[in-house]
Amino acid sequence: MARPLTLDPDRLFPADPATRGLARDLYAGVAELPIVSPHGHTDPAWFATDAPWANATELLLAPDHYLFRMLHSQGIALAALGVPDRNGPPATDPREAWRLFAEHYHLFRGTPSRMWCDHVFAEVFGIEVALEAATADHYFDAIGAALATPAFRPRALFERFGIELLATTEGADDDLAHHAAIRRSGWGGRVVTTYRPDAVIDVEHEAFGPALARFAELTGEDVHSWSGYLAAHRKRRADFRAAGATATDHGFATARTANLSAAESEALFGRITGGAWDAADAELFRAQMLTEMAKMSVEDGMVMQIHPGSCRNHNAALFASHGRDKGADMPVRTDYVGALEPMLDVVGGERDLTIILFTLDESTYARELAPLAGHYPCLRLGPAWWFHDSPEGMRRFREMTTETAGFYNTVGFNDDTRAFLSIPARHDVARRVDCAFLARLVAEHRLADWEAAELARELTVGLVRRAYKLGDPAPSPVAAAA
Amino acid sequence: MARPLTLDPDRLFPADPATRGLARDLYAGVAELPIVSPHGHTDPAWFATDAPWANATELLLAPDHYLFRMLHSQGIALAALGVPDRNGPPATDPREAWRLFAEHYHLFRGTPSRMWCDHVFAEVFGIEVALEAATADHYFDAIGAALATPAFRPRALFERFGIELLATTEGADDDLAHHAAIRRSGWGGRVVTTYRPDAVIDVEHEAFGPALARFAELTGEDVHSWSGYLAAHRKRRADFRAAGATATDHGFATARTANLSAAESEALFGRITGGAWDAADAELFRAQMLTEMAKMSVEDGMVMQIHPGSCRNHNAALFASHGRDKGADMPVRTDYVGALEPMLDVVGGERDLTIILFTLDESTYARELAPLAGHYPCLRLGPAWWFHDSPEGMRRFREMTTETAGFYNTVGFNDDTRAFLSIPARHDVARRVDCAFLARLVAEHRLADWEAAELARELTVGLVRRAYKLGDPAPSPVAAAA
Amino acid sequence: MARPLTLDPDRLFPADPATRGLARDLYAGVAELPIVSPHGHTDPAWFATDAPWANATELLLAPDHYLFRMLHSQGIALAALGVPDRNGPPATDPREAWRLFAEHYHLFRGTPSRMWCDHVFAEVFGIEVALEAATADHYFDAIGAALATPAFRPRALFERFGIELLATTEGADDDLAHHAAIRRSGWGGRVVTTYRPDAVIDVEHEAFGPALARFAELTGEDVHSWSGYLAAHRKRRADFRAAGATATDHGFATARTANLSAAESEALFGRITGGAWDAADAELFRAQMLTEMAKMSVEDGMVMQIHPGSCRNHNAALFASHGRDKGADMPVRTDYVGALEPMLDVVGGERDLTIILFTLDESTYARELAPLAGHYPCLRLGPAWWFHDSPEGMRRFREMTTETAGFYNTVGFNDDTRAFLSIPARHDVARRVDCAFLARLVAEHRLADWEAAELARELTVGLVRRAYKLGDPAPSPVAAAA
Repeated sequence: MARPLTLDPDRLFPADPATRGLARDLYAGVAELPIVSPHGHTDPAWFATDAPWANATELLLAPDHYLFRMLHSQGIALAALGVPDRNGPPATDPREAWRLFAEHYHLFRGTPSRMWCDHVFAEVFGIEVALEAATADHYFDAIGAALATPAFRPRALFERFGIELLATTEGADDDLAHHAAIRRSGWGGRVVTTYRPDAVIDVEHEAFGPALARFAELTGEDVHSWSGYLAAHRKRRADFRAAGATATDHGFATARTANLSAAESEALFGRITGGAWDAADAELFRAQMLTEMAKMSVEDGMVMQIHPGSCRNHNAALFASHGRDKGADMPVRTDYVGALEPMLDVVGGERDLTIILFTLDESTYARELAPLAGHYPCLRLGPAWWFHDSPEGMRRFREMTTETAGFYNTVGFNDDTRAFLSIPARHDVARRVDCAFLARLVAEHRLADWEAAELARELTVGLVRRAYKLGDPAPSPVAAAA
Repeated sequence: MARPLTLDPDRLFPADPATRGLARDLYAGVAELPIVSPHGHTDPAWFATDAPWANATELLLAPDHYLFRMLHSQGIALAALGVPDRNGPPATDPREAWRLFAEHYHLFRGTPSRMWCDHVFAEVFGIEVALEAATADHYFDAIGAALATPAFRPRALFERFGIELLATTEGADDDLAHHAAIRRSGWGGRVVTTYRPDAVIDVEHEAFGPALARFAELTGEDVHSWSGYLAAHRKRRADFRAAGATATDHGFATARTANLSAAESEALFGRITGGAWDAADAELFRAQMLTEMAKMSVEDGMVMQIHPGSCRNHNAALFASHGRDKGADMPVRTDYVGALEPMLDVVGGERDLTIILFTLDESTYARELAPLAGHYPCLRLGPAWWFHDSPEGMRRFREMTTETAGFYNTVGFNDDTRAFLSIPARHDVARRVDCAFLARLVAEHRLADWEAAELARELTVGLVRRAYKLGDPAPSPVAAAA
Repeated sequence: MARPLTLDPDRLFPADPATRGLARDLYAGVAELPIVSPHGHTDPAWFATDAPWANATELLLAPDHYLFRMLHSQGIALAALGVPDRNGPPATDPREAWRLFAEHYHLFRGTPSRMWCDHVFAEVFGIEVALEAATADHYFDAIGAALATPAFRPRALFERFGIELLATTEGADDDLAHHAAIRRSGWGGRVVTTYRPDAVIDVEHEAFGPALARFAELTGEDVHSWSGYLAAHRKRRADFRAAGATATDHGFATARTANLSAAESEALFGRITGGAWDAADAELFRAQMLTEMAKMSVEDGMVMQIHPGSCRNHNAALFASHGRDKGADMPVRTDYVGALEPMLDVVGGERDLTIILFTLDESTYARELAPLAGHYPCLRLGPAWWFHDSPEGMRRFREMTTETAGFYNTVGFNDDTRAFLSIPARHDVARRVDCAFLARLVAEHRLADWEAAELARELTVGLVRRAYKLGDPAPSPVAAAA
């Protein structure tokens, strides 16, 4: 007989009964608030076309690098899981791939993927038995049947999930056609874009050449002159704002910034576009461009996000066969205090600028990030990111940043996901972990209960709306009123 | 109606009832012990003149960089808070500054500043309502009225706080006049100095030139010759010992030490004073001088404190307008194992030498500091410092150092503060957090209850008296007997 | 009257009653499982000769650097503790040394050494009073008397401890005579060796010259030619496998690897053996040899362990007087993501290769090690090592690795000890801490109870047997059936 799948209502709350009671009460106050998702990687085509998804494997397994990286680490070939390579999707039968996943589901014990998946299975699909080899086909069939119904189309789920706003992320070379289609459709869901110009800034990015060409085409600017290149950024930032964007995003291997003179910048840019650059030039140009982006943010009000410290495509053979985003990005030690100084020399005193800092190097939370955000008016701390977007990771984030930066220099939660169906699960985990943290502060008499209730709401909807300049929630047919 | 201000007697104790009971018992055994404060930054003039403080803003807000850095981070101008700039105090009305602080007091939720302030308000001033916009004037008036009474003069508070010893910190160019005045006054409070020669060692310090000139003047030595310079240090160390000092203190951006030959040192010193130095020379000279100071400590018995790893004056614009110590110092990654090796090659085997190591880089607690202190006889670990001098920070310090270094290679608590009125609050937090940690060890049967009680007393008064060579507590009219 | 020595049955379990109950149940399921010890530093001569140990000091104190490093840190001379120097054991009376240890036993409060010692005293020797000055002689006599009996001979204790397998560690220049003697003896205990060729790889190792000479002698290869040197490694790896080894081990100051061409390797090797090397060559050769060892592991199936990041012999004076392994090794910051890339470029895709990574730099757990092991099929994470092999250290290991790497990319516990009698104590601590961690996951509804029970068994015996390729437990007269 299959084991039942249940989500305990007290999950993630501390075991001590008094603290658990406090956490439960705090959570009750925020559990039903709308979802605000200001940063992520869902595909806007889903909401533009509202086409149904095909099956469990293509929707839930093959695109989710959290899942297939773990299975790969235990010797399972990506092709057997249906993960596409550079030649496209493999010939693998989706049902067989799903069976393989189900057989190895125990590998996820103790991981957030396990919690997110169980939440999706139980809450989104209403499945009542646990995933294991014996229930693989039941899952595959039940999910497939559901996906064929109108209630499981992207827009219907968006509405069911109570999403107030969902931001996607597009490159500077994207024509934003899907976003235009969403707006034209008359559908009420608020899906906005984010300006992520990495590929036209990082000359070491494999797509730099084509991206720059497309950048020129979309803007009509001479992107090989320094002034034309900057003008092209300004134009595209305006295009993105017209598509709802309130923010930009930047992700390089380091957080290094620079403060070159105009002449130095122009000369450097000449080497970059002229092909006469070396690795130091490439790094310096990325550094200078972070400062240029910050200056443009002062002009146009866009919130700037920095996601540094990921060593992309660590597995050279896998990159050759499968390309980007296949679970082989590795965090590296990251410096902020020295790295950000040149940029902060330029914009550090701006009170209307917001720069949100993320990290994959938790040793910087208490040492660098909280002190920086606890001083500079323009700096805020993004939530625990990627590998650390987990119960223990989120707990460490609060424990290591709050005492120096407080709660009000943080910006709420980011789900940062490609896995649309897991969005409610991820926000639920974040709300529970924050409430557990607040409950401990109350139990230890470090905070009054009414303050904790106020903070729980701030951490859920208040801070994110203000930090990302999203405005008050529109009276929308979609999102439940907050 | 204003909310009440109360300090829960169980604050900071773990929520689990059994562990909380143990913590409560341990705390009861140390709560009333005298305060030993071997390192801090209070102003000796207060105790020399015993003049009354003016008002809440000038006493509690404008000088406290923990408070105004957080307010600044949320966009509040320092001038509006009464914080002096290079031209002196701003024209801001102190009452208006206080109101601004009160309005934004929620920003401190979850921070130690909030706990320290509430303790000062409730315990020192007897205020019974919480600070918020509506109570700002009540606070300002009540504090102002109290400060005008004899019971709130510096010496009276020193006695009321049960301070057994208070060390201030003075530069090598200080004439120690206030300390002389305190001794001449016949007052029984034990206020001693600490030798902090950074400004005459660090050629990159903005005050290096004038400090060196004053150093020459105070010692009558030729401080431009290497031997004269060293002799001047010896003289001033003796002056400081005569003013009660038992310790020196050194704070550079790194912990680097060096072990140059006499000839190399002399040549390096020639470049430093001759103006022919570069950044590497400046760093090497600081490094060599740490070793020189250690050797002098072997001679004269002074305890050596090293506070490395703060990147001072990170905000260039703020430094230009406001000068030092305005909340813009940022911790940086710090190396100890490699950095201290040259110095330890010289003095590592000394059994009568004590070098107390501090850090702003918590990643070094378990990796470097505990192993070093758990081996070298001359090394001890200073308590959680600055940004980490907080409930979570102190807990992490114990969790990450105790298993390798034990308790007996630590030195008790430092309040390290400029905020005199917060000293009892800070020691109270430290005692509570230590008792909470010990209670957990007892609850988990890792320590017997009687051992924990003994340790609680050691962590409160025993270790600090021995590590800083303070002697047994003098039968003093001031400090309550321990 | 002496205080009683008791080991609480609930030690190391969380205080919360519900969580403690869960931990107790989980522990009951694994407490009696056999001990599998795949990595450590016990002396195979003990099991070859089965000679009795002499007394408490020689067995428990003088060889245990965990113990004497702490005593040394508090100013106690190593000679007074019976610790041998380069001239051999000091003239110290073992009883006097033991008394000194007993007098200072309070220094170990809060350390794992204290727990391990108490476990040895109570469980192995049946002592019922706590160690302190007053009981020192009682201990010395009781332990001495026990050691003189057959039940306390090495093989008898091995059997009593329920050891399924014990791996020792030998250099490439070791003739493995003790292991041969063990096999010849007909005794049923499974004691195997591990191939640790550091001294013939690291030209900066003080024993490099003699070790290389012996390496040539034992293999008959021309170890001064690159091909002969590699052939010698292959021969010795085969010798070690014949002595039961399933694993190799490598411990350098960094984790750096390299991927040189054959010609570059040969040229580098020429500089190394020709004496024309500099520090960069020495480091590059160690780096290249890690990759060579990995390639040989692909050929011969041996599991590869890497223990990087220890700065050996930090105390130069102590190294001069006493030699290696005297408590003066210090952890340093360690890079893995960049360091391992060249090796992983060569062997990263191998599914039959197992490389077990260890660290002394806990900041790499969540940042580098868990992401690496959570992706590469050949990588596994070794347990918390050395200074971190303690309740808090093991808890941090699980908290910081599980969410990204899961449980199944870890390999169970290593006691890694020279202190044979403490092996049951160390495994008991590990089992308790793992059960406490699992109990918290169950209490917080992050794992089902039956899953936790399955995992507890995996963490105790399953993962280690599979990761180290030890096979199923032999039906042996020695080890209790699992």
